[in-house]
Amino acid sequence: MNIYDDETFFSSYIRLREGANYNDLLETPAMLSLLGSVEGKDILDLGCGFGKASRALIDLGARKVMAIDSSKRMLEKARIEYGHERIEYMNLPLEELDRIEGSYDAAYSSLAFHYIEDLRKLLGDIGRLLKVGGMLLFSQEHPISTADYDGHWNEDSSEYAFSGYLKEGKRESRWFVDGVRTYHRTMGTIITTLSGCGFHADTVLEPAPSSKAIEALPRIRRELEKPSFLIVRAYRQG
Amino acid sequence: MNIYDDETFFSSYIRLREGANYNDLLETPAMLSLLGSVEGKDILDLGCGFGKASRALIDLGARKVMAIDSSKRMLEKARIEYGHERIEYMNLPLEELDRIEGSYDAAYSSLAFHYIEDLRKLLGDIGRLLKVGGMLLFSQEHPISTADYDGHWNEDSSEYAFSGYLKEGKRESRWFVDGVRTYHRTMGTIITTLSGCGFHADTVLEPAPSSKAIEALPRIRRELEKPSFLIVRAYRQG
Repeated sequence: MNIYDDETFFSSYIRLREGANYNDLLETPAMLSLLGSVEGKDILDLGCGFGKASRALIDLGARKVMAIDSSKRMLEKARIEYGHERIEYMNLPLEELDRIEGSYDAAYSSLAFHYIEDLRKLLGDIGRLLKVGGMLLFSQEHPISTADYDGHWNEDSSEYAFSGYLKEGKRESRWFVDGVRTYHRTMGTIITTLSGCGFHADTVLEPAPSSKAIEALPRIRRELEKPSFLIVRAYRQG
Repeated sequence: MNIYDDETFFSSYIRLREGANYNDLLETPAMLSLLGSVEGKDILDLGCGFGKASRALIDLGARKVMAIDSSKRMLEKARIEYGHERIEYMNLPLEELDRIEGSYDAAYSSLAFHYIEDLRKLLGDIGRLLKVGGMLLFSQEHPISTADYDGHWNEDSSEYAFSGYLKEGKRESRWFVDGVRTYHRTMGTIITTLSGCGFHADTVLEPAPSSKAIEALPRIRRELEKPSFLIVRAYRQG
């Protein structure tokens, strides 16, 4: 079962996203800053969750959004709250993108890639679904964050302690529920795999919080010490 | 004065490089693994230091090496110990590469870029000196290492503690002598600046120590927790 279909996880996650949160204050603005014009474009939303970004893409002028997620519960909420006639929802794990066809102008993916074990297959599948020159814009948990972490910050010094950066692979942690599984990959692996799959990354962004964001959620200032998110914009090469 | 011309620093550095060290066990093998054939090529060695790599490039078949360093003392040692008729040495800070001309097949730079404040100018100058399709292979201190560091590892847990990752700019630390100045840039800035200067990075490597390296220098196993080096191979786009 997808953790986002777990009742405890789902309700905790929705509560998190309803308050002042890192997504709205940091990740989403950074993604939008790199999006460029989507006017008239056909866009994949990979791991669309409850569908807020899919709808934002339509509101920004996208012609059509194919919104894909492995959680039925998330898609249900997406249809009800952010549905639109130009958004098509599909219940599919990102591991199975080879089951669909199409020719898209862009792929957008917010905080989904760190759940996927096989990045090479994922990027290969996305490349196949994108036109030459098509854009892939994705965010994921930052590799410093997906490395091993003992669960504390040093409050006095703003220090962040981690280990296991070069030990790639599965991680299990507690986030609302036990056993949330993510996959740690180094920054080097991410950039090298993108290139190997025919993408040129023109921008890699580790977003810093604005003073407005720090006002709304003071602890987000810690991002200046250790970023939570990695955002990459890449283009499919000819 | 270049710190490498400081007598205390110079002699300490040479002693370090003569014993079992991170350069020989980790950084140099990783650089060579990405080098490819240099047969018949004209190569820039940027920040050549005491010239061991310049000579290795000649021994691997390079047609000519232009070895550049800002330290006269290093160049003197290079000429004596690793000189060759196909190596030309030049005493020039990397900040002043705009003063030379040429059309090279490749640029090699070992552990010099973190001393340079203006990466965009440096990469622009290198791009101008490279043929289209020419390779830039460089190593530098890893951005996790150039962020702020309080000087301790947690010995029990292998944890590495740092802060200030998103606060780019000058750092001063003690390395043999006080006031060694380096410049911290995030991984995102490095990759984005490369692309903005017309380079496509096909490989980003954060090298892990081999079991042989760990045998020779046991503490190098800590690289698995936190890498010291970042290595990038990029090509000048047309």
